[in-house]
Amino acid sequence: MEIIIREANINDSNEILNLIKELAEFENEINEVELDLPHIEKYGFGKYPIFKCFVAQYKDLIVGLALFYPRFSTWKGPTFHLEDLIVTKSMKGKGIGTKLLYAFVNYANKIRVKRVEWEVLNWNTKAMDFYKKNGAKVFTDWKIVKMSSESMVKFLTKNKTSS
Amino acid sequence: MEIIIREANINDSNEILNLIKELAEFENEINEVELDLPHIEKYGFGKYPIFKCFVAQYKDLIVGLALFYPRFSTWKGPTFHLEDLIVTKSMKGKGIGTKLLYAFVNYANKIRVKRVEWEVLNWNTKAMDFYKKNGAKVFTDWKIVKMSSESMVKFLTKNKTSS
Repeated sequence: MEIIIREANINDSNEILNLIKELAEFENEINEVELDLPHIEKYGFGKYPIFKCFVAQYKDLIVGLALFYPRFSTWKGPTFHLEDLIVTKSMKGKGIGTKLLYAFVNYANKIRVKRVEWEVLNWNTKAMDFYKKNGAKVFTDWKIVKMSSESMVKFLTKNKTSS
Repeated sequence: MEIIIREANINDSNEILNLIKELAEFENEINEVELDLPHIEKYGFGKYPIFKCFVAQYKDLIVGLALFYPRFSTWKGPTFHLEDLIVTKSMKGKGIGTKLLYAFVNYANKIRVKRVEWEVLNWNTKAMDFYKKNGAKVFTDWKIVKMSSESMVKFLTKNKTSS
């Protein structure tokens, strides 16, 4: 079975969005996906792209992706964040995830970033085993904190005198 | 006591680095800090800055900072990541952290990012209480995964045939 790993282009946007939705469904969070096709086209392939993406192609189909963007560590310097590593359900177990991870890590290494990082759900033991097997470290002492746009507005209203 | 919150400039680089090191020491990770002064000057205030920083100034001293950069969510779109929110030890408990968080959230809100996010050590209950009080949500089901530059090279060597 010939899998081609290549950089994504704007014509892949619809299939990229479908894979993002497939992962969100798997994570029981499909209602959280607010992005639509024009967003993917703009943020990935517009005048000022803010993410980069490798795709896995099988025949005419996109069956997986690794989507990432630059981050920065005040300890290490520039890093990359792997936002999504996805292989469509019917194509799992064929080594496509490793190929996509390889393309991402290889690109990061060429650009000489000092670290790559991502996030994983604590019940997704298959994913965690895969990452550990490949030399990544899962951190148990750090928690992720988020403030939604609604909470941002509330916080700003409440603390107006702090401005 | 008059605290001025303002955007950082290149002349603040040394004091920014000192605050970064103070936080790393508090987190028992001082040996992890590989960044030095020229890095801060380049990545914060060079031709292509990759982070932005607000500082809290008291008299002639920088006593705190909020350092952040853009990220991207495949569910929400552009977000901001707060890499460090630091108030120097002697100036804690005076509301400076709230002022810095305000400056950051206010800036993010003006740029219309859909979410702000950061990370916290699970034993730093004071920080977690502060974030929760201000409307942020601490996630317990996501884990952070990192691959160091050494592990990246090992992974690439081992999987060369995946290229």
